[in-house]
Amino acid sequence: MTLLNSINSPADLRDLSKAQLKPLADELRAFVLDSVSKTGGHLSSNLGTVELTIALHYVFNTPEDRIVWDVGHQTYPHKILTGRRDQMHSLRQLNGISGFPKRDESEFDTFGTAHSSTSISAALGMAVGAKLKGESRHSVAVIGDGSMTAGMAFEALNNAGVMEDVNLLVILNDNDMSISPPVGALNRYLARLMSGKFYAAARNVGKSVLPPPMLEIAKKLEEHAKGMIMPATMFEEFGFNYIGPIDGHDLDALIPTLQNLKALKGPQFLHVVTKKGQGYKLAEADPVLYHGPGKFNPAEGIKPATATKLTYTKVFGDWLCDMAAHDAQLVGITPAMREGSGMVEFHQNYPDRYFDVGIAEQHSVTFAAGLACEGLKPVVAIYSTFLQRAYDQLIHDVALQNLDVTFALDRAGLVGADGATHAGNYDLAYLRCIPNMVIMAASDENECRQMLSTGYYYKGPAAIRYPRGAGIGATVQKELSTIPLGKGEIKRQGQQVAILAFGSMVAPALQAGEKLNATVANMRFVKPLDIDLLKQLAQTHDYLVSVEEGAKMGGAGSAIAEALAELNITKPLLILGLPDEFIDHGDATQLLALVGLDGAGISKSIEQHFSLAQASIAEPRLVASLGKI
Amino acid sequence: MTLLNSINSPADLRDLSKAQLKPLADELRAFVLDSVSKTGGHLSSNLGTVELTIALHYVFNTPEDRIVWDVGHQTYPHKILTGRRDQMHSLRQLNGISGFPKRDESEFDTFGTAHSSTSISAALGMAVGAKLKGESRHSVAVIGDGSMTAGMAFEALNNAGVMEDVNLLVILNDNDMSISPPVGALNRYLARLMSGKFYAAARNVGKSVLPPPMLEIAKKLEEHAKGMIMPATMFEEFGFNYIGPIDGHDLDALIPTLQNLKALKGPQFLHVVTKKGQGYKLAEADPVLYHGPGKFNPAEGIKPATATKLTYTKVFGDWLCDMAAHDAQLVGITPAMREGSGMVEFHQNYPDRYFDVGIAEQHSVTFAAGLACEGLKPVVAIYSTFLQRAYDQLIHDVALQNLDVTFALDRAGLVGADGATHAGNYDLAYLRCIPNMVIMAASDENECRQMLSTGYYYKGPAAIRYPRGAGIGATVQKELSTIPLGKGEIKRQGQQVAILAFGSMVAPALQAGEKLNATVANMRFVKPLDIDLLKQLAQTHDYLVSVEEGAKMGGAGSAIAEALAELNITKPLLILGLPDEFIDHGDATQLLALVGLDGAGISKSIEQHFSLAQASIAEPRLVASLGKI
Repeated sequence: MTLLNSINSPADLRDLSKAQLKPLADELRAFVLDSVSKTGGHLSSNLGTVELTIALHYVFNTPEDRIVWDVGHQTYPHKILTGRRDQMHSLRQLNGISGFPKRDESEFDTFGTAHSSTSISAALGMAVGAKLKGESRHSVAVIGDGSMTAGMAFEALNNAGVMEDVNLLVILNDNDMSISPPVGALNRYLARLMSGKFYAAARNVGKSVLPPPMLEIAKKLEEHAKGMIMPATMFEEFGFNYIGPIDGHDLDALIPTLQNLKALKGPQFLHVVTKKGQGYKLAEADPVLYHGPGKFNPAEGIKPATATKLTYTKVFGDWLCDMAAHDAQLVGITPAMREGSGMVEFHQNYPDRYFDVGIAEQHSVTFAAGLACEGLKPVVAIYSTFLQRAYDQLIHDVALQNLDVTFALDRAGLVGADGATHAGNYDLAYLRCIPNMVIMAASDENECRQMLSTGYYYKGPAAIRYPRGAGIGATVQKELSTIPLGKGEIKRQGQQVAILAFGSMVAPALQAGEKLNATVANMRFVKPLDIDLLKQLAQTHDYLVSVEEGAKMGGAGSAIAEALAELNITKPLLILGLPDEFIDHGDATQLLALVGLDGAGISKSIEQHFSLAQASIAEPRLVASLGKI
Repeated sequence: MTLLNSINSPADLRDLSKAQLKPLADELRAFVLDSVSKTGGHLSSNLGTVELTIALHYVFNTPEDRIVWDVGHQTYPHKILTGRRDQMHSLRQLNGISGFPKRDESEFDTFGTAHSSTSISAALGMAVGAKLKGESRHSVAVIGDGSMTAGMAFEALNNAGVMEDVNLLVILNDNDMSISPPVGALNRYLARLMSGKFYAAARNVGKSVLPPPMLEIAKKLEEHAKGMIMPATMFEEFGFNYIGPIDGHDLDALIPTLQNLKALKGPQFLHVVTKKGQGYKLAEADPVLYHGPGKFNPAEGIKPATATKLTYTKVFGDWLCDMAAHDAQLVGITPAMREGSGMVEFHQNYPDRYFDVGIAEQHSVTFAAGLACEGLKPVVAIYSTFLQRAYDQLIHDVALQNLDVTFALDRAGLVGADGATHAGNYDLAYLRCIPNMVIMAASDENECRQMLSTGYYYKGPAAIRYPRGAGIGATVQKELSTIPLGKGEIKRQGQQVAILAFGSMVAPALQAGEKLNATVANMRFVKPLDIDLLKQLAQTHDYLVSVEEGAKMGGAGSAIAEALAELNITKPLLILGLPDEFIDHGDATQLLALVGLDGAGISKSIEQHFSLAQASIAEPRLVASLGKI
């Protein structure tokens, strides 16, 4: 690691000779592999961007020139070269560096990314900003072929293509992969571009076959066909100067090409072909498996998973297969998250009823609405954080028409290592205000399955949220049974304090309930709220507490406060949930403890808020307002 | 109107001879013009779709075959031909028919539209649904060139293009217009397609210039260039069979083309060229002016607007120009709503700092984020309902990075004639849960201006919401003055009841306050809430009331309930706002009265909820909980 250890910023990199870059790439790739194998994180994508990262920082004057990395999970080489080599051991851990670019973390991280397809918009904004300020800096967006399928990338191309005097370079990092295997027409088109037969074929036909006078005519035809009438690629149709495809692992191709592009004005488009997992045979062979591994031994590779606790994702995947067997009207939709959403088995068993629409959340929801219009029963599997992308479609196309679409919201609440960008903290608030929605939060694996069935049979839009990872270990019944709509249940009968818990917070609420001898209810439904249960608990307790793994503002506790006001009940209420701030990455259990959402934190908050610890109920007048119901 | 009066459903239409269709089109066009001139509504777009509508219902077996009209404001001819001719007089009025397709209204309205660019997704869902059910019905999406710029249209094309056996027809209704003049690379590309030189030129070069043996070679080259290597258009790149462009006002072209396409399998794409305003010279000459007129005399045309009350849109437009003159860092961004957002003057005065990005809400917000990264001060002008389209970008790209972007949210609350699809009812709920956001609601024109300045100078994301149309008539000060962050004001001092009003509800709250001798506060900020003012009002009053023109669930009243809980104040609270249902079109003033959000409704609700009317404060124990602070 002699070379790599000498690079503490891209300025050091730019002092190297070109001949040193290849050995540097080898060191960097080895460092990435070693580092990720120790911390876990994204691997395949980072092995694929080693040379591109070196070339970009070598040619461009970073951080003065701006590089925006789309999605950003491929930025480990970038982090290592920009002064964070020695922090890679803390990657994605509490108080460690982020697994994504982060403006707070480094001036080289010009734009925080994580959700896909934002880079062209952001880089265009930067390029226009530079132009308006009379600065000659360059702005570069590096975007994968998967991310290109999302609509906002096209919106940005459409806008950028008519801006003739901006220093914008879009690099398509084409590795024929999003996280799931590639789908869609654009992917097929890029594959044609990559095949290399494009135009070259026409040119060769002309040059080899024709005699000189006819060659002249053929050349004329080609000029017509290429220049005046028919630009070469759809990126040129959009006003970009298109170059490529070139080998993204070949520094001798990358560097001069980037240097040439740097000298050109207006929107430039470079098509680079890379291989996910490049240089590590196991990852090359199975880039999906090595997309985001945990710790592993690089010499041995990832071991087959031994029996671990059942994840909610698996609970959903099993339910989907079982319900599909039971009801031929079921169709399953994923926006490019087949693996993450647990739909591999469903895809295998029901290929005609499985739809991976690409990274296209907006389309996924309205496509589901169209299917529902024909009497199909679509289930949209989507992470809580990604449903934000289809918010308008959920309101305007599904809920307003009260269409029968089921939303399986994975990764609700804190997601751990992925951090603030992926947090599923807002769904309760942003869904609750939408008329016609039914919203459930699963407290254990079996209830998750029952809620999925309940939402599925409900004739209208229903969302079931469940956390990332494993549950509490409840036994999952095979039946496709349901729970009563809008009804919660009392899990523990106590006194004085009633804790109204939602979803993942039922378990820690029960711990707090034990400590305080409090009543604990599993509310199950955020909407419709169980008003009868709320009334009953308010009548029989002095203090009410709501607790949810979601933003406090506008969430489930807020719904309880609204309901109490509506009922004209003035009863002390403590709303517990996630604070009004973005919460960085770290172990989810640690993070929940930090924000007071473990059993100890919940009981402590209750004691403090109602002054129970000091004097128990010695001063009821201070807060209580009894018998007002 | 002999022919038109005989058409009570498309079945009647299909009984006509082809020769009768042209006279029918003339009658239909005259009916549309007459009808819209009496009710107001959308005109230019509907004059442009007369022939296309006739041809579609003539060729396709509606409603068995599905037609999805993108945006849907061009469906008046469709409504007239599908049994709603006699209801056109009630268009967009309370209890009348909708200005958009609506599933509840007619079986011919297969999918409710209004926000743009949903049609391909929905029609694809229907086509896939038919396929899965073994039905041979056709699904047709009719989408304008403006709507094609939105990302979700591309997401749908990307998905549809690989589905080889669906009966899907996408009709691009290319009129070179969205509501504002066209922008972007796609528009430029379509103009090239429309120019008709495409390929024909290459073909002609071949055929006219070359001697027969060379013509053979040229043909071969053309086949190579066209068939194998380079498909003709980007729509073919995406897997569609592309036909066109054809004249969308020529029934002799439309009908046989549609009949041919109907016989083909797989995704079909028909490029139709129409003229907005077709057949009414004044609208042809100025389709923007005639996009959505009020009532007018067709013989005279729209009269120049006489001095009317100042709209909030104009307040924003004036402020934008004044602030731009004051601060060179200001840039203004609109997603294709230059006129609607009041940005015409700004565009004229500051063309380099004006960005119409097309119908591309997602891109507009992240583009603004990129500009903010470079120290520019972007102002995104967007309707409340359309910000739903950029929700994830607001969270992930702006708020999470705490970037300095100002959002001017027009059409907040009920919007009147456009109805539920355009309602700006959810912004307070969906914005409030986002950390770092500052949210203001303007109670009058002058405050709107002050809030815009306040949001602009606030170093972070800020949203200012204001209603559609005219305000209460407040005098607008020219200064660019601000208001204190997070501070409300008492507008009327009363007793017993304190009404905490937000934005447009301050005026009716004052009326209610007069009636009840209640205190009325203009809260101004939904976030951060004025906690000191809330405390003070709670300490000095028996009953608290919040009132907002927004969804009650999760909105400003909900914020007050949360704050009271946090403060451990148990005080009776009545939350007034929009009910948890979608509210149809109608006059906004009427609608507000219907949901109890006028002065009389507010005072009545207060009296009833707190039983004030019956016995004033005779039974305080029933509800009150005094002195608990």
